[in-house]
Amino acid sequence: MGRVLDAAEVANHNTSESCWVILYGKVYDVTDFVSQHPGGAKVILKLAGKDATEEYDPVHPEGTLESNLKPEALLGSVDPATMPKSEPQATNSEKIEDVPVHTLLNMDEFEEVATKKISKKAWAYYYSAADDLITKRFNTEVFRSILLRPRVFIDCTECNLNTSLLGNPTSMPIYVSPAAQARLGHPSGEAGISEACQSMGTIQIISNSASMTPEQIVANASPNQSFGWQLYVQDNRSRSEAMIARINNLSAIKFLVLTLDTPVMGKREDDQRFGNVIDELTEQASPESWKQRDKQAFAGMDPTLTWTETLAWLARHTSLPIVLKGVQTHEDAYIASLHRLQVKGIILSNHGGRSLDTSPPAVHTLLEIRKYCPEVFDRIEVWVDGGVRRGTDVVKALCLGAKGVGIGRPPLWGLAAGGADGVKRTLQILVDETKTCMRLLGVQRPDQLGMQHINTRLVEQQIYDGPSGLGTCRANHRSKL
Amino acid sequence: MGRVLDAAEVANHNTSESCWVILYGKVYDVTDFVSQHPGGAKVILKLAGKDATEEYDPVHPEGTLESNLKPEALLGSVDPATMPKSEPQATNSEKIEDVPVHTLLNMDEFEEVATKKISKKAWAYYYSAADDLITKRFNTEVFRSILLRPRVFIDCTECNLNTSLLGNPTSMPIYVSPAAQARLGHPSGEAGISEACQSMGTIQIISNSASMTPEQIVANASPNQSFGWQLYVQDNRSRSEAMIARINNLSAIKFLVLTLDTPVMGKREDDQRFGNVIDELTEQASPESWKQRDKQAFAGMDPTLTWTETLAWLARHTSLPIVLKGVQTHEDAYIASLHRLQVKGIILSNHGGRSLDTSPPAVHTLLEIRKYCPEVFDRIEVWVDGGVRRGTDVVKALCLGAKGVGIGRPPLWGLAAGGADGVKRTLQILVDETKTCMRLLGVQRPDQLGMQHINTRLVEQQIYDGPSGLGTCRANHRSKL
Amino acid sequence: MGRVLDAAEVANHNTSESCWVILYGKVYDVTDFVSQHPGGAKVILKLAGKDATEEYDPVHPEGTLESNLKPEALLGSVDPATMPKSEPQATNSEKIEDVPVHTLLNMDEFEEVATKKISKKAWAYYYSAADDLITKRFNTEVFRSILLRPRVFIDCTECNLNTSLLGNPTSMPIYVSPAAQARLGHPSGEAGISEACQSMGTIQIISNSASMTPEQIVANASPNQSFGWQLYVQDNRSRSEAMIARINNLSAIKFLVLTLDTPVMGKREDDQRFGNVIDELTEQASPESWKQRDKQAFAGMDPTLTWTETLAWLARHTSLPIVLKGVQTHEDAYIASLHRLQVKGIILSNHGGRSLDTSPPAVHTLLEIRKYCPEVFDRIEVWVDGGVRRGTDVVKALCLGAKGVGIGRPPLWGLAAGGADGVKRTLQILVDETKTCMRLLGVQRPDQLGMQHINTRLVEQQIYDGPSGLGTCRANHRSKL
Amino acid sequence: MGRVLDAAEVANHNTSESCWVILYGKVYDVTDFVSQHPGGAKVILKLAGKDATEEYDPVHPEGTLESNLKPEALLGSVDPATMPKSEPQATNSEKIEDVPVHTLLNMDEFEEVATKKISKKAWAYYYSAADDLITKRFNTEVFRSILLRPRVFIDCTECNLNTSLLGNPTSMPIYVSPAAQARLGHPSGEAGISEACQSMGTIQIISNSASMTPEQIVANASPNQSFGWQLYVQDNRSRSEAMIARINNLSAIKFLVLTLDTPVMGKREDDQRFGNVIDELTEQASPESWKQRDKQAFAGMDPTLTWTETLAWLARHTSLPIVLKGVQTHEDAYIASLHRLQVKGIILSNHGGRSLDTSPPAVHTLLEIRKYCPEVFDRIEVWVDGGVRRGTDVVKALCLGAKGVGIGRPPLWGLAAGGADGVKRTLQILVDETKTCMRLLGVQRPDQLGMQHINTRLVEQQIYDGPSGLGTCRANHRSKL
Repeated sequence: MGRVLDAAEVANHNTSESCWVILYGKVYDVTDFVSQHPGGAKVILKLAGKDATEEYDPVHPEGTLESNLKPEALLGSVDPATMPKSEPQATNSEKIEDVPVHTLLNMDEFEEVATKKISKKAWAYYYSAADDLITKRFNTEVFRSILLRPRVFIDCTECNLNTSLLGNPTSMPIYVSPAAQARLGHPSGEAGISEACQSMGTIQIISNSASMTPEQIVANASPNQSFGWQLYVQDNRSRSEAMIARINNLSAIKFLVLTLDTPVMGKREDDQRFGNVIDELTEQASPESWKQRDKQAFAGMDPTLTWTETLAWLARHTSLPIVLKGVQTHEDAYIASLHRLQVKGIILSNHGGRSLDTSPPAVHTLLEIRKYCPEVFDRIEVWVDGGVRRGTDVVKALCLGAKGVGIGRPPLWGLAAGGADGVKRTLQILVDETKTCMRLLGVQRPDQLGMQHINTRLVEQQIYDGPSGLGTCRANHRSKL
Repeated sequence: MGRVLDAAEVANHNTSESCWVILYGKVYDVTDFVSQHPGGAKVILKLAGKDATEEYDPVHPEGTLESNLKPEALLGSVDPATMPKSEPQATNSEKIEDVPVHTLLNMDEFEEVATKKISKKAWAYYYSAADDLITKRFNTEVFRSILLRPRVFIDCTECNLNTSLLGNPTSMPIYVSPAAQARLGHPSGEAGISEACQSMGTIQIISNSASMTPEQIVANASPNQSFGWQLYVQDNRSRSEAMIARINNLSAIKFLVLTLDTPVMGKREDDQRFGNVIDELTEQASPESWKQRDKQAFAGMDPTLTWTETLAWLARHTSLPIVLKGVQTHEDAYIASLHRLQVKGIILSNHGGRSLDTSPPAVHTLLEIRKYCPEVFDRIEVWVDGGVRRGTDVVKALCLGAKGVGIGRPPLWGLAAGGADGVKRTLQILVDETKTCMRLLGVQRPDQLGMQHINTRLVEQQIYDGPSGLGTCRANHRSKL
Repeated sequence: MGRVLDAAEVANHNTSESCWVILYGKVYDVTDFVSQHPGGAKVILKLAGKDATEEYDPVHPEGTLESNLKPEALLGSVDPATMPKSEPQATNSEKIEDVPVHTLLNMDEFEEVATKKISKKAWAYYYSAADDLITKRFNTEVFRSILLRPRVFIDCTECNLNTSLLGNPTSMPIYVSPAAQARLGHPSGEAGISEACQSMGTIQIISNSASMTPEQIVANASPNQSFGWQLYVQDNRSRSEAMIARINNLSAIKFLVLTLDTPVMGKREDDQRFGNVIDELTEQASPESWKQRDKQAFAGMDPTLTWTETLAWLARHTSLPIVLKGVQTHEDAYIASLHRLQVKGIILSNHGGRSLDTSPPAVHTLLEIRKYCPEVFDRIEVWVDGGVRRGTDVVKALCLGAKGVGIGRPPLWGLAAGGADGVKRTLQILVDETKTCMRLLGVQRPDQLGMQHINTRLVEQQIYDGPSGLGTCRANHRSKL
Repeated sequence: MGRVLDAAEVANHNTSESCWVILYGKVYDVTDFVSQHPGGAKVILKLAGKDATEEYDPVHPEGTLESNLKPEALLGSVDPATMPKSEPQATNSEKIEDVPVHTLLNMDEFEEVATKKISKKAWAYYYSAADDLITKRFNTEVFRSILLRPRVFIDCTECNLNTSLLGNPTSMPIYVSPAAQARLGHPSGEAGISEACQSMGTIQIISNSASMTPEQIVANASPNQSFGWQLYVQDNRSRSEAMIARINNLSAIKFLVLTLDTPVMGKREDDQRFGNVIDELTEQASPESWKQRDKQAFAGMDPTLTWTETLAWLARHTSLPIVLKGVQTHEDAYIASLHRLQVKGIILSNHGGRSLDTSPPAVHTLLEIRKYCPEVFDRIEVWVDGGVRRGTDVVKALCLGAKGVGIGRPPLWGLAAGGADGVKRTLQILVDETKTCMRLLGVQRPDQLGMQHINTRLVEQQIYDGPSGLGTCRANHRSKL
């Protein structure tokens, strides 16, 4: 470790044959690791021979280096005097003056301010969605096409949003969805979100790709604060098992959220444009090269998950209740409800439109379940996310049968705009809007909301009306019936 | 009263501990009153130590000071020589030349001219609506999606709009809805609107939050001029009772309009942006602070109103007929019709989209009533407001069963653009358009209009089709059946 | 006549008490006529004391002065040397280079070029429509929402558009609708349109408000050229009778078109803005002033027309077949078909959207008739106009049952863009497009087109579905059944 | 041939009486040929007396001159020194830097880059569609209005797109539609597309109007590469027969595609504007001149094709399987299926919106067939094209019953943007997107896709619901039943 290297020397090792990078002033030989990097080799090679700290830091939790590199990979430290001046990262506009978060009135204003403050790369990661963003936009629009039915002459003095998710009490039916790489937007990262959730009394689901360790994120949790933890099963199962073991040890984490809607990466073009994902040129298109591309597409995730195998594997490694995220059909909701001894909830989600464009919004799936198999709502908890930007959206989801409503991008914009205070304000706005809406509907508690409070006539004309796969589901999962 | 104070001395009293303000050249100590101000403490504190006349005057009727402050609060007068120069209020554009109102052809042009003439604050108050203005826009659009069915070869020489509202004769089925703070737009204020209504022979409903006293507004009424008066029940009931007593003494006021759709303030962001409403920063989010926020949300209004208690209370204090404003479901319309001994009319209204975004337009509620309980039209008068901008809109509402059609923002834009003459012209345009439309439909009188004159096919596809609460209504209001 | 007056002297007579105007170099005293002017007094008073030729000429056919003024109204001639210099009329843009009409490819391009060439006033007259132009736009859009069903493997060598309207042969089912004031756009006026119709072999309906006399318009007609003549019945019936007598003498005119959809002027705001219509200020709004306004609204037209009286009156004055223009409901189409001994055709028309905004397009009325009383198509000819801009629009109207398809604005834009050649080119484009469309549908003649060639699914969801007035129609017109 | 002519001398022969042109340095007398030119006389006359090489070359395959002109038409060569300097062709923008195709992420970006690189004329040819481009846009939009139904917990490791079209194996269900004049966009022309198809393992249909000969295009085909060849039957049948004979000799060409949707040229205005098509001025409109116009409209194509005559004629000249392109109704799909001994497939196509505006997209016809005569899918292969821009579009077409999905403009934009590599990248993007979509639906092979994977509710509300012509079809084609 005592060795001090010249930046110019490091710069010579800039190929896949010999690839060195500088991180936090130290020099590492990552040649062996390049091909195993979950984010792809190209991302590293672009930084080969250079100081990669600025790019590396906000997207990797503590301990990542140690658990991926052998000790001998650390070659020494770089002589700071030999380092070239770094250029500041590009943002979407000139640096703006700080806008106090209490002057921001809604989610759109938070997004606008955050967009101006953060790097283009961070913006692209947060903003992007699959293909033409049709599903991303539809997620929000579909809420707007549901009308409310306000009632009059009802005492609305009392109104509170207290509820519980999987038995965990929370001050509101709104939770923070798992969203990765919070430190891209603000140095306080996922811990900042945790601080806001504590202050507001709500639940945070920690992303599998968080930029901080779960231990860091829950470190300052209050005794009655609850968390979920999101699991992407990796093709290297032992890594996932190790993580689950760590999670089992964190008492603040009350449930696991297994994300199912992205076994293969969605095509997020803004993300590709601003360098978060690097595509390989099709120089020699062929069935062979396609296998390679297919493999890349999984990016280290295990594409072999099935109801039988995966739930059994999970049962061997944790006793935490399981929530399945990414359900988008009534058939899958129904199958999940058959596994209710282990699966305690599902999240109707299209991954914020990031996975498959023109996939349906959660509102559609809620109505589909109501139409084909409403018993699901009695068997397991149904949560939703995607496109929620107003308290009225929250209320509509609850009317349709959701028990919990997740917000994904808003806490990230909130964090980017103002750190933990920005997230608090974001949650506060939603709480205020939700209560105003409930009062004007003449409702005191979330569990009083129902179909009589909304007019879904327009949306119902869009709901799937084709052949139901329920018969097949029952046949295939007979043992669970 | 003889004491003369220096402006600089007043300026020292600019906190909630000691709060002085200058109004019309006099100095008041309002320290005790700050926390009771219906518009919130912050609005006053922003002006603490300063001359508040320009902000205070256009939104408070005469007598407000006297009835809210003790005599000893008046400390003296300010020495004019010590006052700083005031800056003119910001408007939406450079001062424009006066546009003669007779050159304006429609409601949109009036809004455009008024927008240029008035302060941003006044504009924000008049223009703003809840959240994303979806309901505000939909109010107008829904009229556009109803088609007319003109008939030919019918003598259309005669056509008049004479009708009556609750037995009060009027020259047109169009009335002026209660809209607050007319003096923000023009010094002639609500009295200017009254002058126009007298000239045009129609009915004005005076806002509970008018910027002039009801006595001032009806002062120059002609013998056959009719008014309604809008009541927001205050949490301090004795204040409301006192006001009702005053109203009972004004013979020009023929009915009370009890507004029910805003027990809690809607979220009007334009209004917040331009300083009419001041939000508190969520510094210490907690269940405690939420109670505080909830309380603020009511802004002095009584959130406990119910069919039984409130109507009985009203009966004790007035024998004027009651109109309930803000009905948005067939269920509430039906319950109102059960109380027809006291409730003589209802106004289908979403408060111009200012209360709850994505609540339905009056056209929806009209069609809902026709579908579920058309007997309501026989029992009580049904009036509507929201989005009316053309004579064809008036005609369509009448075809659907409305007896009266209210306009809220148009008279304010008219007043702002040209005082009483602007309001007259506004009403004249609507009258002309309405008559042209009726003639082309082959109709001579409002009561001849019916469903055969309109094609509502598109709108019918949007009407609520879910479970009706009529059964519950009948059970709960059995004594009235 | 020998008297020569000084322009300055004329200028003194500029009030309703003494109103002189200069026309074609002569001075007239029109004081007595002002109040009888069909276009309103204000239009004349604006020009009182001045040379009115430029405004007067393009909108009045020859002989207007003579038939409206007594001989003694002619005071003499003006001394040209005393005349002030006149300013050129404003156009929508700088003078543009002439665009050869054969380079224009569609109706929109013609409108664009014409808009640049003509005065703002002429543009406003041609372009304007009622209120918000919703019906005007919908007229065109509704055609776009009907899909075609092209067939393959059909010999399409032969295709011709020959048909007849009321027995008059024509080379195409497209006729020129009556549209007023062609000389506003081009000096060749209605005679230029006639020349184009002769060249293309189609039928022109001459407007009641043409800027040339019917005699001038048909002067150069070929022996087999057919015309219709549009009648607005005037409140001074003897004037209409005199005109009908003149028409009866013109053998080229084969039928009368009685326009029914504008007993009262529609509200065309562009027209008002650019000075073609002048509104009175509502200075003293009152039932009295309303009677005055109502009277003005008829602008000399007779508002008392009815099926019984008016058709009988017409029968006394002409034996020409009658076509009723402006039918917009299946009920009126049905009643017209009961009068088939005299009424040989109807035109489903909303007057190009100029009369009543949100009235239905002819496509709606066609579908309404098909739904409620298809026998109408067997009894009388059904023609349509409004919004036709493509050959596919023509074909769709024919598929729905129309026998003739009128175009109103396109010939005016064509004329304005290039005189008679512009109209020819306009018609040629429509003919070419129509034939291409028919060939691709596998159809050789207009009468082979039917519902199997179009998909009207979307439009059918908009068609009136309410109570039909057919029962009442049958009761009221029993004698005709 | 030895004669050397002066450019000035050639320039004198610039009329239809004597028309010389310079091509590749040689001088030809084309006076006799002008009137027979399939593209119209005007196109040639515009270049009479000039060097036409730049205009001629990219749109005519090798051998065109030889097979159309007599040997004596070649007058000699031009003296290069006498030639005037030529001006560069206009493009849509300034010359842009080359954009590497691997940085382009979707079809839209390819179109954008290609638009900047190629001449306006080439752009107009590729981009243009009939009339108002309604069908062109709808082709793409209709795919977007179909929602997907992703399934979870399905092993998606394996996914391949292998399938076959008419028994010819292909690595993907995506084929290249016949699109003319590839050399307008890139010198490698149709051979460049062939190279990309070989590399990617898919099928190319060669346009009848290719800018290279079929022999050139298939010259470098690999042994297992398959092609189709598009046939427009010419009015001069012997020319078509000669071409078919050449095709019969090319073993790489496995089937004929007979295009039926353009017996008459659609009206592509962009094409007309930029000089690819030249319209005749209507100088003497008359039935006579219309016959002339009609003739022009066919542009050398035979308008007499019928099921009986044409299929029999084809059977006499080739034994290749026939695919009928341009089917747009269930009736024609059904008739085609009756001819299944000869007709092995149909392509539901509206010619990329180039033929008849407001004709239906292939998605409509797929749903129409499913509704009226689903047996068609069992009898013959159904392919579709039009508007496909995303892998999700491909998947949706397959779910609806298509066996093959054609792309027309995308390979041309790809070629124009980057030659054969651009086409490869275009195909690669579609393959990647298609596989991602299939994996997220839980599907491994194209034949597993079905109606249960999509929600077509919105589109179904647009599908033809009128009288079916199936009865007539059965009657007329009884011999085939």
